[in-house]
Amino acid sequence: MLREAVFHVAHGSYAYPAAPDTLRLTLRAAKGDLQRAAVLYWDRYGSSAPAAAELSIAAEDELFSYYQVDVQLKTKRFAYVFLLDDGRQSLFYTEKGFFEDLRPNVQFHYPYIATGDLWEPPPWAQGAVVYQIFPERFANGDPANDPEEVEDWDFPPTTTSFKGGDLQGIIDRFGHLVDLGVDVLYLTPIFASPSNHKYDTTDYYTIDPHFGDEETLRELISLCHRHGIKIVLDAVFNHCGAGFAAFQDVLEKGTDSPYAHWFNIHSFPVETDPPNYETFAHEVATMPKLMTQYPDVREYLLDVAVHWVKEFGIDGWRLDVANEIDHQFWREFRQMVKAENPEALIVGEVWHEASDWLRGDQFDSVMNYLFQQACLDFFAAGTIRARSFANRLAKVQVNYPHPVNLAMFNLLGSHDTERFLTSCGGDVRKFALAVAFQLTYEGSPMIYYGDEVGMTGLTDPDCRRGMVWDEEEQDQELLSWYKKLIALRREHPALRTGQTRTVWADSMSNVYGFVRFLEGEQVLVLLNNSPQVQKVDLSEINWPGPTPKELQDLLTEEKHNLTALSIPPFGVKILV
Amino acid sequence: MLREAVFHVAHGSYAYPAAPDTLRLTLRAAKGDLQRAAVLYWDRYGSSAPAAAELSIAAEDELFSYYQVDVQLKTKRFAYVFLLDDGRQSLFYTEKGFFEDLRPNVQFHYPYIATGDLWEPPPWAQGAVVYQIFPERFANGDPANDPEEVEDWDFPPTTTSFKGGDLQGIIDRFGHLVDLGVDVLYLTPIFASPSNHKYDTTDYYTIDPHFGDEETLRELISLCHRHGIKIVLDAVFNHCGAGFAAFQDVLEKGTDSPYAHWFNIHSFPVETDPPNYETFAHEVATMPKLMTQYPDVREYLLDVAVHWVKEFGIDGWRLDVANEIDHQFWREFRQMVKAENPEALIVGEVWHEASDWLRGDQFDSVMNYLFQQACLDFFAAGTIRARSFANRLAKVQVNYPHPVNLAMFNLLGSHDTERFLTSCGGDVRKFALAVAFQLTYEGSPMIYYGDEVGMTGLTDPDCRRGMVWDEEEQDQELLSWYKKLIALRREHPALRTGQTRTVWADSMSNVYGFVRFLEGEQVLVLLNNSPQVQKVDLSEINWPGPTPKELQDLLTEEKHNLTALSIPPFGVKILV
Repeated sequence: MLREAVFHVAHGSYAYPAAPDTLRLTLRAAKGDLQRAAVLYWDRYGSSAPAAAELSIAAEDELFSYYQVDVQLKTKRFAYVFLLDDGRQSLFYTEKGFFEDLRPNVQFHYPYIATGDLWEPPPWAQGAVVYQIFPERFANGDPANDPEEVEDWDFPPTTTSFKGGDLQGIIDRFGHLVDLGVDVLYLTPIFASPSNHKYDTTDYYTIDPHFGDEETLRELISLCHRHGIKIVLDAVFNHCGAGFAAFQDVLEKGTDSPYAHWFNIHSFPVETDPPNYETFAHEVATMPKLMTQYPDVREYLLDVAVHWVKEFGIDGWRLDVANEIDHQFWREFRQMVKAENPEALIVGEVWHEASDWLRGDQFDSVMNYLFQQACLDFFAAGTIRARSFANRLAKVQVNYPHPVNLAMFNLLGSHDTERFLTSCGGDVRKFALAVAFQLTYEGSPMIYYGDEVGMTGLTDPDCRRGMVWDEEEQDQELLSWYKKLIALRREHPALRTGQTRTVWADSMSNVYGFVRFLEGEQVLVLLNNSPQVQKVDLSEINWPGPTPKELQDLLTEEKHNLTALSIPPFGVKILV
Repeated sequence: MLREAVFHVAHGSYAYPAAPDTLRLTLRAAKGDLQRAAVLYWDRYGSSAPAAAELSIAAEDELFSYYQVDVQLKTKRFAYVFLLDDGRQSLFYTEKGFFEDLRPNVQFHYPYIATGDLWEPPPWAQGAVVYQIFPERFANGDPANDPEEVEDWDFPPTTTSFKGGDLQGIIDRFGHLVDLGVDVLYLTPIFASPSNHKYDTTDYYTIDPHFGDEETLRELISLCHRHGIKIVLDAVFNHCGAGFAAFQDVLEKGTDSPYAHWFNIHSFPVETDPPNYETFAHEVATMPKLMTQYPDVREYLLDVAVHWVKEFGIDGWRLDVANEIDHQFWREFRQMVKAENPEALIVGEVWHEASDWLRGDQFDSVMNYLFQQACLDFFAAGTIRARSFANRLAKVQVNYPHPVNLAMFNLLGSHDTERFLTSCGGDVRKFALAVAFQLTYEGSPMIYYGDEVGMTGLTDPDCRRGMVWDEEEQDQELLSWYKKLIALRREHPALRTGQTRTVWADSMSNVYGFVRFLEGEQVLVLLNNSPQVQKVDLSEINWPGPTPKELQDLLTEEKHNLTALSIPPFGVKILV
């Protein structure tokens, strides 16, 4: 047995409550090393004999198999040890290491499933389809509020150009969102700011006048809610804009300003070129970093966060540069926002492994760039093949509790990346395949405005082009593809909130397949990421539930026996 | 390279701030597998070439070597990858796995050392010597407040017997604490309760009348503070006593009681024999569990916590059954207690791996039963030898940040265990050796009252005997040993707050040795846990700092060259 590979801790994604009296346990071992893995568990004050439960493989990556099981105890107080068998020896794996014989005081403890620790992202957000809009570029509904200089809508944008997009535009084009079938609308910042992106806030309490006013926002929110769509805004609390009153006061009064400690000024007087104060990224003078360790700074920003939830009824916040603000700030943020609306969604911008923010005390979810990078490498660049793709997905999947995975903002692109179709070299077949994956895999698929009509664009600023509204210029076939997949997702709860098991990952044919399963429903998705027809022998699929007798293709309504199935080049099969 | 053994995550004890601009990184690899390990690191927005730093082995257990390094960046924003070389190949180890060539988007991120996240246990608690008193059994200073039936002081106690110990007794015998040289006094519960242990609180706002009153407590606290001794009380918030007013109200009024939801009553009317409500442990009717998920329950208990800090100036709380209360309760607890006194100490009772409570948002430290069990197995039972002992210690050491390790309550025994001398079969040589280890190793050694004079006792209730005050019956040699070691600890800051490196672990001779080091000072401790004289060749010691030319024995003042040193049976050498 490769002992060095075996891993378990009694917290995080390795031990979490799946129900008020049920613990979900994960154990990692070297891939293929174990023949069987079981857990012996008992009440930590109890004297009765341990119960035993066998674990099964939930995911695998290049090095490890991840075993999982749910165990239940009415008293909710768990002591447990694992029993591992590799065919040559059986060993107990405990908090104190490996033993051949079971002895006292070595067991893992999950001391108690406390009701106060039970948490999950808001159920409405789990598996929801999210649509991201960069408001300056979606639609210009009210030319009267346009900035002074506005370039042609179809002209390639620059980092500083304006096009006149606004909230009224979103209201006018709301039918597009409804037709598409999205569940959540996420807007990049809309508060007063001199830039087109508005990540340099001048006034956190005012809608940018070029975007509209409080009335326009209220109208948009009410439109969303009438259609059962939730709306999430962008909270930019890591830094403000240089025009923010507190920073202006420091510029003017120096150390005499009561806001001097709101910023990290290296020396007075304040200079802006180059900045002699801490900023977002590298010397971005227009974005002074806010010192959130101070109670008055926290109080100000937390009041902003609560204000828009309480007074306007927004349904959540996406948090910009969330990982450069202290955890303690986010703990208070969650407390205050959830006190106002327990169903509010909190999504952090964290491009990397994010478990430190996803323990129930801070965020519900993050922008899932690990998902995006895996999709880029597999579908667009083609630098990894099906097996590696499955490995990358497995690492993310086992890193978070299941309800968190369901709420992950699974994006193919955003205002901060090249558009995915461009990364595909413009090959719509590859792009459509990635979209099929995004819209059937576990998580909250986030669609970046325009992707659904075939928009292209290099990274910022080119990915922020004006939305293509001319139906002649829109890829209608692609748009129908999105609608069809979103509709399937609505019709099949397993696609929305089911668990996920990889069942096919063949690098030679480059076919990747997985099953989503929930309460008896099993949906099989097979993706052929190759330019040839590929065959998959359906009889070889290892179903998480009972093996079905016959399958129906949800896209064509054809029926299939469990025999070889042909998948066209860059084709997808969704079977139930 | 054994890739399955390599482990790093960018949080917890594997990546934490060692200073406002310095990150301490730990990497785990298979024991002895690597020839070199380095980290390449850069500002996550920067474009300059990465800096490189070589890691060194900080600890080893039976399977793994743990490499460590401190890296510094003025901007406090870290991107990094490890470079590992096993002599056959060199590989980059990244967030996305292993690569032969370095590529974009694979690096680990510690996004920013936010000032608001910097934390450490109160400096006064790091390395402090703690003395635990079970007040009913320490000294009877005021016979007037004795319970009605009091047994002989020297009579073996039962689970229900009383002896009349009280706060006045502690005041009267305070000289003993001062002579011993302790830094912290920890009292098991002192609030009103019908039991001798008082873990079944009737009234959280009243000192138990058999122990004294508010005046007695104030006098004791002021006595402590005059002598520079901190005082920590025991917070029993997992459950109350059956006599607690809220529970009595529910007993009386059933569902009509406004406190009905404070408890988990399975059905009304409430029955106590057997209890039909949730309790501490298994059906302990006298200890109904409190439902801390409800705001009014939280508010009540948090007010209690703040009250004794604010109105009486206690210096901290030890938290009973801390791991069966929700994390969210403890987060609020920390916020409120630290708001009242930022230097207050919070120590949880967690007998197992406790990192989930030690992230800066909940506890400063825990009762270190993992330490106690390792000592039991090595010094008392003799079931593990020096190498295994070192392995057990290493696992604990790498599991927490260094300042947390310094504040761990390192106990040999408590009111909940057999006395350590009894576990040693009464062999004082073994016990004295364990004490030498406890008082020189990293952490806060916690002395259970009476251990220092050679008291024995089986587990509860026998470990709670009346303190032996008759000097004839006290082991004076042992008491001097404690005093000498505590004095050494005070004289040598490295023993109090230094880092620790195991430098000797020989199972054959059963000699274990470690170096405590701090700012140039290196103290070498060698423990011979065998009944024979053992030799250690001092020239073979791998010092964390420069190799000294000569060593002085701190116990005998003898000087030694770096040659073979004899250690008597069950002897200890403390060399500087």
